Amino acid sequence: MAKRWQPGELKAKVAEICRAGGIPANDAGMIADVLVTTDMRGIHSHGVVRLARYLDCIRAGGIQPAVEPVTLSESANSIMASAAGGLGIPASVKIARRLLDKAEKSAIAIATINHSDHYGAAGHYAMMAAERGFVGLSMSNTCPLVAPAGGRAAAIGNNPFAYAAPGARYRAILFDVCMSKVAAGKLVIAAEAGRKIPTDWILTKEGKPTDDPNEIWHDAVMLPFAEHKGYGFATLVETMTGALAMSGMLASVHSWNTQPGRDADTGHCFIVINPAFFGGTDAFRDRIDAMIDELKACPPAEGFKEVLYPGELEWRREAAAHAEGIALPEASEKELARAARSVNVAE
Amino acid sequence: MAKRWQPGELKAKVAEICRAGGIPANDAGMIADVLVTTDMRGIHSHGVVRLARYLDCIRAGGIQPAVEPVTLSESANSIMASAAGGLGIPASVKIARRLLDKAEKSAIAIATINHSDHYGAAGHYAMMAAERGFVGLSMSNTCPLVAPAGGRAAAIGNNPFAYAAPGARYRAILFDVCMSKVAAGKLVIAAEAGRKIPTDWILTKEGKPTDDPNEIWHDAVMLPFAEHKGYGFATLVETMTGALAMSGMLASVHSWNTQPGRDADTGHCFIVINPAFFGGTDAFRDRIDAMIDELKACPPAEGFKEVLYPGELEWRREAAAHAEGIALPEASEKELARAARSVNVAE
Repeated sequence: MAKRWQPGELKAKVAEICRAGGIPANDAGMIADVLVTTDMRGIHSHGVVRLARYLDCIRAGGIQPAVEPVTLSESANSIMASAAGGLGIPASVKIARRLLDKAEKSAIAIATINHSDHYGAAGHYAMMAAERGFVGLSMSNTCPLVAPAGGRAAAIGNNPFAYAAPGARYRAILFDVCMSKVAAGKLVIAAEAGRKIPTDWILTKEGKPTDDPNEIWHDAVMLPFAEHKGYGFATLVETMTGALAMSGMLASVHSWNTQPGRDADTGHCFIVINPAFFGGTDAFRDRIDAMIDELKACPPAEGFKEVLYPGELEWRREAAAHAEGIALPEASEKELARAARSVNVAE
Repeated sequence: MAKRWQPGELKAKVAEICRAGGIPANDAGMIADVLVTTDMRGIHSHGVVRLARYLDCIRAGGIQPAVEPVTLSESANSIMASAAGGLGIPASVKIARRLLDKAEKSAIAIATINHSDHYGAAGHYAMMAAERGFVGLSMSNTCPLVAPAGGRAAAIGNNPFAYAAPGARYRAILFDVCMSKVAAGKLVIAAEAGRKIPTDWILTKEGKPTDDPNEIWHDAVMLPFAEHKGYGFATLVETMTGALAMSGMLASVHSWNTQPGRDADTGHCFIVINPAFFGGTDAFRDRIDAMIDELKACPPAEGFKEVLYPGELEWRREAAAHAEGIALPEASEKELARAARSVNVAE
């Protein structure tokens, strides 16, 4: 059986590796917290598996490990910031915290961040808002990965979008998706298992449908979920994180995976709504509870045991990780070890 | 060939019918403008076809035709309002206008409306924002129509969501969707044509998959698009329009179609973002143009002639309607004639 990490132990390891990679201690702690929390919620694709690549980008010069985000403009309920080519996670945590303070005094507040890089799981920042009693929205663009509806080339990112809303008896609703039909991770799993995939998941780089998941290694293009609907939500995210944030947009966002030495110029956007301005925070929390109760009372379809609310699986996994430790997938253990080696930290 | 209406002529007819149905002249003009503009954009499912049913609800006592919306609370950048059991369209136009004035002085502003009814096409209010140089979001809940992912009963609305963002050379991006896999109209068309449907569109009321579109007449349940993704976006809309707006939520929103004599208690939410706080409105419009140019430059997939941006089809149809008049579908003509007869206006 794989090693089980205690949350604090894994966070300490990640932070140690970050510091050894030239990341200031405070920022290293933020990265450790975001990545490990994400693994605890079972979203391993956005957890510690990403750390080695952040360090690759720092070494290659594509990410500046020790810059502070810069405020470009600010108002009572808005922040327009730049991550100044630094790490996406600490820039996002810092700006999100300032935004939450603004939301204490405003019905709704918004922050944009440009010139950033990968910010981890979108849902983390939405949950920062929910933990303060607010509704939170979080979005980021990515380098082009997805074909627009009717197109055959990767012209838009898979553009993650998350929202969270706090309950009283229930912790929160947490919904976090990207705009492609399936996440890249599912293709990798199918490829490793030697399985065919449905023909509406990806196109070959020539724009042809395929049932071969290995095309993902040959510049395959992801298709948006629900055709024009996934495409439209991707343009919404691009509008807020590229156009509004004045960040890279579409093809001017660069892949931190394939071009680690280049500024990714990724954009993020956070929106926070304060229910105190809409009848009170306690009443709102109770209404979220009532919504969840009613959704869970829906009889399950054939093949399902129960109806889940968005986030329910994540909370179960996080509770299990607290109780039993974190079992990382092999790929995550491997990348964590690679990260440690790359900065001369004991594996 | 069907009659072609001039836009002004059709608006005058709709307004006349509304006034004869007890709707104040100013509100009648708003309803005429929203419904006819929607038909001009080719969204006939949300155009004048709906008018007769609004009048049914007024006669049955489910909608109060002459009430004014009430402000429940207000701040520099927020309005919490009630439509007071009145018509959804005039309440939404009035509150959206006040919200746009607030957005002149704020980076982001939000309005909720509760105790409302059908508000027409969600995109109309998003476009009101885009026409003032803002990004606009518009959402409404509906009575339960869609099964949650893993569920077999209609437990949540199809909860329309729209956004619009203004360009310079291009008019705007306009994206307007609901959260079911297909709109009810597509089922009706398949049923009338005697065609089978894919088995992932609806469930029978017993929760079984079916390829028979006629099940829509027997309490079939719509499935969300992209499974948990459509479900999650539906909960986002429910959070903003039900929980936050303190309106009816899930099963406490009633169908204005099947229960015309009952308060629908529908909720709406509008969010407006002012690009003047993010580097300037002109720069933002130029960036939306650049985004559209880049998306349209994507090579088309097999079977497509071009890549469209969200809203492009609507603008083409609206231009054609201005040039050639509006050709209403038969169902719309029939319902318009029924609306006229019901209030003793010449057909």
